[in-house]
Amino acid sequence: MSLSNYKLLTEQIQYRLDHLTKPIGSLGEIENLAARYCSIIGQAMPPLPRKWIYIFCADHGVVDEGVSLYPAEVTRQMALNFQRGGAAINVLCRTFGITPVIVNAGVSGEDIPGILDRRVGSGTRNFRWERAMSREQAVSGIEAGRALAQANEPGLVGVGEMGIGNTTSAAAVFAALTGRDPLQTVGRGTGLDAEGVSKKAEVIRESLNRHCPDARDPIDVLSAVGGFEIAMIAGFLLGATKKSLPVVIDGYITTVAALVATRLDASALDTAFFSHQSAEAGHRALLDELGVRAPLDLGMRLGEGTGAALAINLIETSLRLYREMATFGEAQVSGPEV
Amino acid sequence: MSLSNYKLLTEQIQYRLDHLTKPIGSLGEIENLAARYCSIIGQAMPPLPRKWIYIFCADHGVVDEGVSLYPAEVTRQMALNFQRGGAAINVLCRTFGITPVIVNAGVSGEDIPGILDRRVGSGTRNFRWERAMSREQAVSGIEAGRALAQANEPGLVGVGEMGIGNTTSAAAVFAALTGRDPLQTVGRGTGLDAEGVSKKAEVIRESLNRHCPDARDPIDVLSAVGGFEIAMIAGFLLGATKKSLPVVIDGYITTVAALVATRLDASALDTAFFSHQSAEAGHRALLDELGVRAPLDLGMRLGEGTGAALAINLIETSLRLYREMATFGEAQVSGPEV
Repeated sequence: MSLSNYKLLTEQIQYRLDHLTKPIGSLGEIENLAARYCSIIGQAMPPLPRKWIYIFCADHGVVDEGVSLYPAEVTRQMALNFQRGGAAINVLCRTFGITPVIVNAGVSGEDIPGILDRRVGSGTRNFRWERAMSREQAVSGIEAGRALAQANEPGLVGVGEMGIGNTTSAAAVFAALTGRDPLQTVGRGTGLDAEGVSKKAEVIRESLNRHCPDARDPIDVLSAVGGFEIAMIAGFLLGATKKSLPVVIDGYITTVAALVATRLDASALDTAFFSHQSAEAGHRALLDELGVRAPLDLGMRLGEGTGAALAINLIETSLRLYREMATFGEAQVSGPEV
Repeated sequence: MSLSNYKLLTEQIQYRLDHLTKPIGSLGEIENLAARYCSIIGQAMPPLPRKWIYIFCADHGVVDEGVSLYPAEVTRQMALNFQRGGAAINVLCRTFGITPVIVNAGVSGEDIPGILDRRVGSGTRNFRWERAMSREQAVSGIEAGRALAQANEPGLVGVGEMGIGNTTSAAAVFAALTGRDPLQTVGRGTGLDAEGVSKKAEVIRESLNRHCPDARDPIDVLSAVGGFEIAMIAGFLLGATKKSLPVVIDGYITTVAALVATRLDASALDTAFFSHQSAEAGHRALLDELGVRAPLDLGMRLGEGTGAALAINLIETSLRLYREMATFGEAQVSGPEV
């Protein structure tokens, strides 16, 4: 779209918002969501979108260091739970009419029937001692994610993840890309106590000292301490932007993937929505780093795309208000006295 | 319910929440909402609720003082807009499967066909010069609200309002009941500028000086500077509590009604949920006064029950998660390693 057409479009959108039967701006963030969706897809009166959430699953060798309360096999067990419809994200998808797409980005062990197989490897290596993955694997994960986004039909898409140990990997990537101390980037994950959190930070510190990833090279950072799902989500965001596909980011891990994506391509988040402020401690610093704010703050820290699902529901609701509310003229309601 | 049965119930609810396939507490506020709903209605596995939002409409004589950007006739015009389905609250009710109940609590002029007629009067008097209503009218408004709640079937109910000038009345009631300076209780309403806001505070200050309402007597405060919808919502909350009917409070005006209700009966909010932090300036102080926090903060300041509708959707979503998620045992997922 040309700049002048884009300006015309955003003026049309704002004109409609300002003429709906409500005080100007009184729907707050809801109005921003509707306006952003319309301007991303380039339509002043868009249809209600079809909706999907991609849940990228992968294992993490660093779990051997005792950084999670849960054993590594829970990644596979939860992938099966997703497939059978018993997880939180399944309930939210059913409630909001979202299609869940479960992606095996690199779960250890055998293939999981019924789940989209995009395995980059059979879990990452334990990055306290070895690089998590090869450079080729990092690139291949990104490309697999990009391809998924590019193959998706128009609509509204969310990204989520499942991977025991992945808050440790995400916190390491965040620290490596920004030079922050790991103590500022970690959180409780699945429920660590203070001692567990400081041990997790120490594992990250040692790993970064061992591999010395280059902060200016996101592929190097991913291969040193990343995860297959993090690489794939970063790639998915890059693909979504290129397709003008609105994409909703979930919590801590997907936001780290968003940070990776922006370091690969400054326009990576042009079609992105942030969903919620996670209770994971490092998430606030991460949103600050990206210079963004999330509309929801419900103390959630589950992942899977659960925050994205709530935000997709909010965005769809904003579009219904934008489309269906009467204007002052239609409803014969007097406007403000000026 | 006896105290020991109540303790057993809350333990059952917490046991289920802690055995669903997610880290303990990781759904944050969502878990609190489900637990609160279950404990209010006294069931460890409640059905999904039927849902209603009551929208109480009334006129305010104080509009003559120029305290609103909109002319007084907008109250009636918006009531008609509600009836025809063109307002924000209608769209939200359709989206979330909520039944809107539009109540004429005291709109000036003729009856509005198709709207529940519970008129206490034809708009309040201009309280800058006269008391807004008689003591009998205040009591009759409260009783009409109480009767509506008591006649409602079991389910989940929200309260909203429409009344040009009602942020002025609400701010006056809030100031009168708490001794706060009107400058701390007012906000922009439908969109006043700074000058308009300070004029509004000045009108309230003069009115309170004229009538000197007794802060210990909520009926006196309502009759001095209240509104018919505010009285009726306060009564509705009192009726809901007595029926163990979960009720969702909307924004600034309904929260002032909640304050009135607690001054009439300390148990008035035992079945209440707060929905959102409004952008109306005085709302934060008001929630602090009540010692509560609202789960949503979306910069909204529309009223009508729009924030309550979003919260009703969130509460229903929390119940679906609580009811439908698989437990660790059902899904054969390993629990935390302890």
